[in-house]
Order: sequence, then structure tokens, then C-alpha cells
Amino acid sequence: MRDELQHQKNLQLLLNQVIELMNKKEVLNTLVHKQEQNTPRQTLIQSLAERENLAHLRQKLGSLHPADIAFILENLPLKQRKMVWDLVKDQKGGAILLESSEVIRKNLISEMPHQEILDVAQRLESDEIADLLPYLPKESTLDVLTSLDKRNREQVQSLLGFPEGTVGALMDFDMITVREDVTFEVVLRYLHLRGHLSEQVTQLFVVDRTNILKGLLPIQELLVRSEDTLVKQSMIDQPIYFYTDDTAREAAQAFERYGLISAPVVNAHHELVGCLGVDMVMDFMHETTQKELLNQVGLQEEEDIFSPVWKSARNRWAWLGVNIIMAFIASRTIGLFENTIEQLVALAALMPIIANIGGNTGNQTIALIIRGLALNQIGTNNFRYLLFKEISIGLINGLLWGSVVGLFAYLLYQQPSLALVMVVSMILNLFVASLAGVFIPLTLHRLGRDPVIGSSVILTAITDSMGFFIFLGLATWLLL
Amino acid sequence: MRDELQHQKNLQLLLNQVIELMNKKEVLNTLVHKQEQNTPRQTLIQSLAERENLAHLRQKLGSLHPADIAFILENLPLKQRKMVWDLVKDQKGGAILLESSEVIRKNLISEMPHQEILDVAQRLESDEIADLLPYLPKESTLDVLTSLDKRNREQVQSLLGFPEGTVGALMDFDMITVREDVTFEVVLRYLHLRGHLSEQVTQLFVVDRTNILKGLLPIQELLVRSEDTLVKQSMIDQPIYFYTDDTAREAAQAFERYGLISAPVVNAHHELVGCLGVDMVMDFMHETTQKELLNQVGLQEEEDIFSPVWKSARNRWAWLGVNIIMAFIASRTIGLFENTIEQLVALAALMPIIANIGGNTGNQTIALIIRGLALNQIGTNNFRYLLFKEISIGLINGLLWGSVVGLFAYLLYQQPSLALVMVVSMILNLFVASLAGVFIPLTLHRLGRDPVIGSSVILTAITDSMGFFIFLGLATWLLL
Repeated sequence: MRDELQHQKNLQLLLNQVIELMNKKEVLNTLVHKQEQNTPRQTLIQSLAERENLAHLRQKLGSLHPADIAFILENLPLKQRKMVWDLVKDQKGGAILLESSEVIRKNLISEMPHQEILDVAQRLESDEIADLLPYLPKESTLDVLTSLDKRNREQVQSLLGFPEGTVGALMDFDMITVREDVTFEVVLRYLHLRGHLSEQVTQLFVVDRTNILKGLLPIQELLVRSEDTLVKQSMIDQPIYFYTDDTAREAAQAFERYGLISAPVVNAHHELVGCLGVDMVMDFMHETTQKELLNQVGLQEEEDIFSPVWKSARNRWAWLGVNIIMAFIASRTIGLFENTIEQLVALAALMPIIANIGGNTGNQTIALIIRGLALNQIGTNNFRYLLFKEISIGLINGLLWGSVVGLFAYLLYQQPSLALVMVVSMILNLFVASLAGVFIPLTLHRLGRDPVIGSSVILTAITDSMGFFIFLGLATWLLL
Repeated sequence: MRDELQHQKNLQLLLNQVIELMNKKEVLNTLVHKQEQNTPRQTLIQSLAERENLAHLRQKLGSLHPADIAFILENLPLKQRKMVWDLVKDQKGGAILLESSEVIRKNLISEMPHQEILDVAQRLESDEIADLLPYLPKESTLDVLTSLDKRNREQVQSLLGFPEGTVGALMDFDMITVREDVTFEVVLRYLHLRGHLSEQVTQLFVVDRTNILKGLLPIQELLVRSEDTLVKQSMIDQPIYFYTDDTAREAAQAFERYGLISAPVVNAHHELVGCLGVDMVMDFMHETTQKELLNQVGLQEEEDIFSPVWKSARNRWAWLGVNIIMAFIASRTIGLFENTIEQLVALAALMPIIANIGGNTGNQTIALIIRGLALNQIGTNNFRYLLFKEISIGLINGLLWGSVVGLFAYLLYQQPSLALVMVVSMILNLFVASLAGVFIPLTLHRLGRDPVIGSSVILTAITDSMGFFIFLGLATWLLL
């Protein structure tokens, strides 16, 4: 009974078990190949042992959830990955591909022959096929589509029509519809005839004869109320629902906010077209969170741990290029004041302090603004207060930490005027940092870009260059 | 029918509507107070209008989901927040407190008289009470506990015994148990008698007479199979379950991984003690994600948008203090080479480039390692490869971007030897950055700390100081 959870807890343990089983087989393989001069008898014994190990491995893999196999594949070097994949693809290939991360999915599909792709696709639901299609080679895409019956093909095509990140692209068709004027007895008879109900179906969708959504019937009602109850007496007639073009992010917020388990999806005419389940919403949230973590440091796509060094290096270049340009600008700002530094070289040692602390306070402001945007908290009614508050905090911190660094400078160099320049520069640069920290993410957001991605680089460019400029400029003016 | 979703989409719109309604009332209030010398008749008219507006506001608030009211409270200045809270607390006070963020919850509770707290608590489930208790003043805590019946009190006390972040602290008791040897007919009769089944109950828990968990019965089975089916024929006998001391993070990963909707929670003796629902898991994930975003920039707790400037400023100090110390260390590193800079002032302008790019590449490595840790991907079997890969990428990028900055330096200052120093320093500093980027998060993780919090500061301290040291050291050695 513990087994399944154990997997989740000890994915690494599981991985090691599989690797161990594989190594046994490999060791034997090598032996067999080395000793080809042996008597047939010996070879036979070894190949029996090999077969036994293989059976073990197959059995182990057979007992695992597709998500766990996807995990294992992701964490095996390319050659071993291929071996495991060959063992599992026939039975659970489709499910594993769906659970894999994008890079692994691409990697696995790129090695599949045409017919294998068709076989895998045939065992999937239409929403799953729609998820896989973008990763298939062109010739397979067409063949998969033509291999479907009319209804499924239409479903797949409708899903493909919705842009990524919308509810339409995320929904599935795992739903049951009923009319509002039938009794529970009729509904129950229908369900009994149907014979199977997936665990994701926790409510029935109530529609009229033109498929317009009228309400929801939680299946729990069917269990507690008498058989002569009418659907309309028991249904929720003002349910939360989504339009196909709502963003997946909005839907995820609604699921989290209202504790939803599933919700109907309608088109602009209010016709029921699909269903959104909490499992898909959680997958979406998980992926988004992971992506944002990587985007913050300019990694455009996830990296396969075992992808070639060269490919991974390129994944990081765009970001480093941008940062180099920003560093050049800061460097030229310092270059303007080379004369000043020549006369008072202490400035060179002190200037990074002003720039760094500016960057740090600005990034705190950015994090709060991005959080506020994500939670819908920033609007016209509180923007002024927010701006006032961040600027005040910037000035308070400038005075406080400016005094600390001023004292530090005085103790080191015994020049009161230099200490004063430190204090004033710090106050000014933290003022700049507060302004930039508020306006950069808001501007990016207003331009329709994700503030998580660019805000921090732009801010650091500003706080660095302005920090150097303010500090060295004040020093030139006051100290020379 | 659109209404509820509209709230979610247009929380800002909703907020504005409420503020508008409140302002009407305020305006009238002021009028009434100003014109106390007026005839009773005029006052009467105004107070009628006022009452009408108040009724509007109350009606609006009454139609909202507690989560939406919590949102509105969070986004109102303190005085208006109090007014709205007074209007809603009687009916939905408890639910709203539970949906509020921690800061707002503290703020609201601090203003509630003793009796009000007791009233609110009486309308809550025991898991909800356990969530609120830590925020209540001491005298209220005791009275709330004594006001509960024995069973609820025991439940609350058991929940309070589990450390934060464990499954035990997150679970609730919204569950129904059945025996494995009864027929569906008996189960259905029991459910009919019970009369209500929450939408969160999507499976029944099968236990033996000593309360040991034997399996799960999805309620869908009750709808599709005949009444003489035995529970044990239809139940899932190897379900995924959790122990009370499993971490909430592990549970969240399992929910996401296996698409769970709810799961049983057992104690060390394998007795069923509670239930974990996907709604609680999503709340947990949401809070964790938000916290991590803030923790990355050293914000220990969320900030109430309308909390005083002074309090917010203090929330940011610990982090800035740490960064100042790191900046001092970098500054002293430069200080070691003041003679060198005096002789070749171009070094002052170029040195931040080496330090910055080191920080940027190191942070990319950190993000990948943190992601790997979160997804359980880093183990003994791939650690060496990972380290080899990150170092290789560091060296490749060092050579590439080092050449770019070397060229930049040559074009500016026309000194080939200076350009060479740039290239070599960049390679060396990116090597340092790769090592630090791999080992810092892994070490923090092994010490049981959250690598999201400290990694970046430590890394930047190293890449700054080492960057300055390598560059200025090489320059001193080769150029003077």
C-alpha cells in the first residue's frame, strides 16, 4: 500500500533502482559480446540471466505511474533513456509523452518512426492528441488527424485553434450533459447504462436543447436526494464558468480563489464547448511557476539535464548579451570621470557600494509590484499611495544606509567631505531606484509584456549607471 | 450568470464600485455632521438617503464570495477597511478571515472585541478554527477552545500539534468512512440519511473496525454500479495516501503529479485521521510561490499595501544590511589595488563588467539547480555530469564574452595587454561563478535551508569580490 507514495517521496531512490537494473543488463551484454569465442552453453546461460534482468526491469517500469516514468527518462543519459523508452513506449507511450517536459518530449518524438507515432496517438483522447500534435513531424500530424473519426477530429481541430495560454487550449471534453427538466431517476439510469465515470467528472453540466449552459449539477446531489428530484431543483444555476478566450492564468486564479474542482467552458454564444479540470489547472500553474523562475535569469526554455553543453550554452546567451551591453553603458559612465578617479582613487573602491545597494532596494520594490500585479492589487485608487510609499521608503533607507556607508568611508579615508558625498549619493540613488522599481514593471505590464522577465535587468542598468554618475559627479563637483 | 466570474476578472472594477458606494455614504455623513443646526426634517431626509446607500453597499457585499471581500479589505485604506469589515463580519467574518492574507488577518483580529471573536469561531469547522487560533489573543484562544464540544476540541488540538508545513497541519475532517463488506445499497441509504455531501467529498474512505485505512471508493462508482455491489469489489485498494508528518510540499507535488482531487491522511499506525483536498493544496502552493518571490529579495513577510511606511521600511532592512556588508567586502578588495588603479585608471571603468557578468551567469546556474532540487532531479548519479556541464558552459561563455569585452576594452583604450587581461579575468571569474552557482544552493539545501533565499546574495558577494580581485590582481601583475 505504501508503494505508490514511496515513488513520489523517493523519486531519486526509484531512479537508482532502475539504473541498477539497467547496469546489470549492460554488464551482461558486454560480457556476452566479449566472449563470443565461448561455448554456446555459456552464452546461453548469460543470455538467460540477461533476459531475467530485463524482465525485472520491465516489471518495475510496468508498475509505475506515467509521470514517474517521465521523471526517470528525464534523468537518464541519452543512451539509457532510449533503452527505457523502448521498454515502455508500447503500453504507456502516449501518457508518458504527455507527462514529460517539453525538451524530453521533443527528444523522444524525434526518434520515433512514423508508424509508432500513429500507434501512440490512437490510444489518446482528443485533448491529449491536441497537446501532442505541435511536437510531431509534419507528415505525422496529417496522418494522425485523418486517422481520427469525425467527432474527434473536429475536437482536436477546435482545440488547436485556440492560442496557447487560453482556456480554450487547456480544456478537455471529459463531461456529461443533462437537461434541466429530467428527474434524478432518469439521470441515474443514463449513468448506469454508460457504465464508467472518470474521477475527474465531479459535476454534470445542465444544458438546454441548443446546448446553452443552464447550470451545474454536483454529482453529490445524486447521492443524497431522492430519485424524483428534478435536475433544475438541485442544480447550481449561477455557476462560475469560463469563456474559451479567457486566459489560463485568470482561470487558475479563479480555481484557487473559489476552490473549484472543475468548471464548464462556453463559447461567445454561451454554448457549452468543453470542461476545465483542476488537474489541468494545477499542471498549468506548475509549469508557469517553473518558467517564471527560469525567465527571471533569462533562460528562455527549460534545459534537458543531459542535453549537450553547446546547446545549453546557447540557451543562456541572449540574456548575457543584454547584460553585457548594460555593463558597457555603466562602464562608459565611469569612463566619463576618469580624471576625477585619478585624483581621488578611493572613489573607485567606494562607487560599487552606491550602485549595488541601489540595485537591491529597487529589486525589492519590483518584487512587491509584480506581486501586486499578479494579485490584481494595483489600480488607479491606490497607485499614488504606493508611489508615495516606495519613494518614502527609498528616502528613509537612503538616509539610514547612506549614513552607515558614510561612516564606513570616513573611518577608512578620514575625509568628512567624502563621507558626505556618500550619504547624499546614496539618498539620491535610492530615490532613483524607488521610481524605477515602481515604473519599470508597471510599464512592461501596460505594454503587455511579462514584468518578471525584463524588469530586473533594466533596473540594474539604471541603478548602476545612475549610481556611478551621481556619486562620481557629486565627487567631481564637491571634492576637487 | 456572468456575475461571479466578472468578480474574478474585474476585481479592480469591483473594488471601485465599493469605494464609490462608500464615498456616497461618507459625503452624506459629513453633511449631516456639518449641518447639525438644521431642522429635524432635513436631517431626516439625509439620513434616509444615507440609509439607502448603506443598504446598497450591504447588498453588494452580501452577494460576494468571502475571497473577494478579503481582496477588497486588503485594498482599502485602514479607515475604510474598518467600515466594510463592520458591515460583513457578522455574516461571513470567519470565512473572510480565513481567505485574507496574514497581515490583513492580524490587522482585522486586533480590532475585534473578545465576544465577537467567540461568535465568529462558533460558526467555523474545526480545521478552520485551528487555522485562526494562532492569530487570536491568548485569552480568546482559551475561551474558543472551551466553547467547542469534546470531538471538535480534540480535532483542533490535534491539528495544532502538527508543525506548520506538514500534511497534518493542512488536513481537514471533511470525510465519510465506510466498511469494505457492505453493499452500495447500504452506503447509499446512509448518504441519503445524512442529507448533505460537500462538493469536496469526491471519495469515501474505506476503513476496518479499528479505523485502519483499507482503500478508497470514488463516489462515481456509486452512480454507475448496481446496488448489490460490495464496497470492496469497487474500491481502490492501493490508494495514494499521506502521513501526518509528510511535508505539505511533498503532498503538493504528488497532487500535481498524479492529478489527485483528495487523499486520505493516516498516522504512524495507519489509522485514518484526516483528509487532504486539492483546494487546500492549491492554497498552499499559491502561498508558497508568493512567499518565494518575496524571499528572493529578502522580504520576510508580505506587506499590507496600506501599512505604515515605517513598518514597511523595517521589513526590508535585514536584507539590505546583509548586502551592505557584502558590498563593503567587495569595496575593500578594490581598496587593496588602489595603487594599481592610480596608475591605470581605465581599470576602474572596466572592473564592474567582469564582476557583473560573473553574477549573471552564476545566477543562471543557481536557477537551474534550484529548479532541479524542486523537481527532485539532482542525485548522486548525475551530480558529476551537472558540475562538468556547468563548468564547461562557464568556460565557453568566459571565452566568448571575454573576447567581446576584450575587444571593447581594446577599441577604447588601444592596449592589447589590457584587452588580454579582460579576456583571462572573464574566463576565470565565470569559472568561479559556475562552481559557486552549483555549490551554494546545494550546500544550503543540504543544511536544511531554503536555497531560494540566500543563494543569490552569497553568489554575488563571491563573483563581485573575486571578479575585482582577479581582474585587478592580473592587471597589477601583467600591466605595471
